[in-house]
Amino acid sequence: MTKQEYSMIEQYMISCMDDSAHDREHIYRVLYQALEIAKTEEDVNYDVLIAACLLHDIGRKEQFENPALCHAMVGGDKAWDFLVASGFAPDFAHQVKHCIQTHRYRKDNCPESLEAKILFDADKLDVTGAMGIARTLIYKGIVSQPIYSLLPDGTVSDGEGDEAPSFFQEYKYKLENLYSNFYTARARDLAKERQGAAADFYHCLYREASSSYEGGSQELGKWIS
Amino acid sequence: MTKQEYSMIEQYMISCMDDSAHDREHIYRVLYQALEIAKTEEDVNYDVLIAACLLHDIGRKEQFENPALCHAMVGGDKAWDFLVASGFAPDFAHQVKHCIQTHRYRKDNCPESLEAKILFDADKLDVTGAMGIARTLIYKGIVSQPIYSLLPDGTVSDGEGDEAPSFFQEYKYKLENLYSNFYTARARDLAKERQGAAADFYHCLYREASSSYEGGSQELGKWIS
Repeated sequence: MTKQEYSMIEQYMISCMDDSAHDREHIYRVLYQALEIAKTEEDVNYDVLIAACLLHDIGRKEQFENPALCHAMVGGDKAWDFLVASGFAPDFAHQVKHCIQTHRYRKDNCPESLEAKILFDADKLDVTGAMGIARTLIYKGIVSQPIYSLLPDGTVSDGEGDEAPSFFQEYKYKLENLYSNFYTARARDLAKERQGAAADFYHCLYREASSSYEGGSQELGKWIS
Repeated sequence: MTKQEYSMIEQYMISCMDDSAHDREHIYRVLYQALEIAKTEEDVNYDVLIAACLLHDIGRKEQFENPALCHAMVGGDKAWDFLVASGFAPDFAHQVKHCIQTHRYRKDNCPESLEAKILFDADKLDVTGAMGIARTLIYKGIVSQPIYSLLPDGTVSDGEGDEAPSFFQEYKYKLENLYSNFYTARARDLAKERQGAAADFYHCLYREASSSYEGGSQELGKWIS
């Protein structure tokens, strides 16, 4: 890929992402992690991989405005239109579109090409470890969801089986179970290295939150007549 | 304090806090932590302490709408007005107001009464440890600030000396240095127990973020001609 082509794709990506700076940095982390994973794979098409990494979240705004839309589907279509209109070959645009449309964690519509598998893994890596914790908490702030829910007895729920959305619910439902769902060996190793940080943080936060409530309402009862 | 008085103050608190659920749970954590701290102190006025804990953040909305206002000052005045209008003695309302107006971390306007010191410590405890990390990240999401800034050489800043707001900047500027600023021995001990969780998380997140960028742009350079 030429510098000029890279800049053109990068500028289009930036024009599609008008929310906070951390989202844009997610794109570069995914790109760099994908290149790290690609080092251990053979016959990677780097042009497809780089374009797909840069463009994989360009459908986010549409999904945010209309949650019935899937950002991967919208993003894949937008990428195809943009690339072909910019003079890239339709076959190249098609390969990039496949990567983008299969980068979400879904039972159907799985990544098939090597580049799609690498993008999938690099994107999922950014939800592992301390980074996954940080990004999830920031998102909870954006959508006004709490850290935890209370159980009917007034104690803190650990998130397991919760229906109401919260950070603990998302940890139990999603973050805790990510670590076996990788296509490449390198991503699986990188994820394993990060797993402890996420688990340690969750357990510390649960312990701190619970300890505030433990005995709290009982102690309060002593002073309320 | 009677159950009726407690409920009346609690309802007023709830009516003043119209944002996400996590803010309301902060109030209960502070209340319960204050009662835990109070166990190890003598001659605590529990009525003042409980009312002050419940009402300490009722000026937040005003500060959010007009950042020139200080929520502690606004909240103290609002609490005094509410308590006196609700039939509490002016002296009681005055003591509660003192606690609320001095609960912020400021060089001047320090807590003087025992109850004010306990509220200050209980509120600061909720910024220590994993809970402090979680609350700060949620806040960064609300105000659209990133996890980190990049240095001019394209690597991740650890936050030290940063001017641009980010999670790492706030960690270095505020969260890292909280642990000696407590009035009560019990709060200092509780904070020390939590300190490791915050430091571990920060270091893991910094390592993860940095490692994505390390070599990333160099690797990218190999594929861009």
